[in-house]
Amino acid sequence: MKKILLAALAVYAVGLSLAVRAQAPADDGPRYNGTALVRPDYREWVFLGSGLGMTYQTTPSQNPSFTNVFVNPSAYRSFLQTGRWPDKTVLLVEVRASASERSINQSGRYQTNQVALEGHVKDGRLGGDGWGFFNLSQGSEGPRLTGNAVAGCVDCHTKNAAVDTTFVQFYPTVFDVARQKGTAR
Amino acid sequence: MKKILLAALAVYAVGLSLAVRAQAPADDGPRYNGTALVRPDYREWVFLGSGLGMTYQTTPSQNPSFTNVFVNPSAYRSFLQTGRWPDKTVLLVEVRASASERSINQSGRYQTNQVALEGHVKDGRLGGDGWGFFNLSQGSEGPRLTGNAVAGCVDCHTKNAAVDTTFVQFYPTVFDVARQKGTAR
Repeated sequence: MKKILLAALAVYAVGLSLAVRAQAPADDGPRYNGTALVRPDYREWVFLGSGLGMTYQTTPSQNPSFTNVFVNPSAYRSFLQTGRWPDKTVLLVEVRASASERSINQSGRYQTNQVALEGHVKDGRLGGDGWGFFNLSQGSEGPRLTGNAVAGCVDCHTKNAAVDTTFVQFYPTVFDVARQKGTAR
Repeated sequence: MKKILLAALAVYAVGLSLAVRAQAPADDGPRYNGTALVRPDYREWVFLGSGLGMTYQTTPSQNPSFTNVFVNPSAYRSFLQTGRWPDKTVLLVEVRASASERSINQSGRYQTNQVALEGHVKDGRLGGDGWGFFNLSQGSEGPRLTGNAVAGCVDCHTKNAAVDTTFVQFYPTVFDVARQKGTAR
């Protein structure tokens, strides 16, 4: 009987460990196909904020888009602890068209179809400052932006970012965290 | 040996079931204190969409607010399967002030401090059509809106909602689901 119990307990322990592992949070870090970023399933990721018609120009857009920013949950939880983005952070900006005056809406604008998706990834394997930009607007994976296509992005993010190379100044909940942790500049 | 194996398998099965239950998603449905709704910790809930300056009036707001809408993950996953909101759905609208022309932003608007939080809950225990409105803008719980304070909300939601009593027409990803499932009107 003792033997049976020991054997049962051993199998129970293995089963428990397998079950816990199976239920652990999925790895939400970046996945690549060669140098391309595989488009993440981000619909349940953490929403950081949205803008409407945000541009670097002083001329307002006549057809403004919303820019919804999401981050992978593991990076978000790490940021809450440290005020910094950890390795394997994936920030996504989802660009959506806007509309007005439909249904009960008489003024103001709401979101409609998605028109672009861009990724900003922190991963030591990317070289340089560890951050890479990816264009995910087409298909199930997106190429890394290189050369002249990204030089302006890198320059502006490096000079103007509130935290690391990211525009946390526009994401109110994490901006509060960064100010509390003293990591915002 | 056969007996040992059977006993081991039985204990394994119990262990597995307990472990899976222990790791199941936390209950993200509505919690009450009396008739008040306890303010949920919704920062990691599913983002459905945002509007800027949305009003029922034709006069545009001079100081428009963003309205971010979130739903509890269990209700979201159920909606993906059925195109309808299940019992224990909690929809929240987070109202945030907007700003412009700070840092690199030259035009358009981005989100700043939270100015209000409202809840729309489906729960058979609420009576009537099963939906209740709650004002969560103050403190850790919010009263249910009743009488004249809510009559206009109920009337407008009942008449104009795309699904059940909710304005799914302004939440592009779930609106697509509702149209596919034939539940949008």
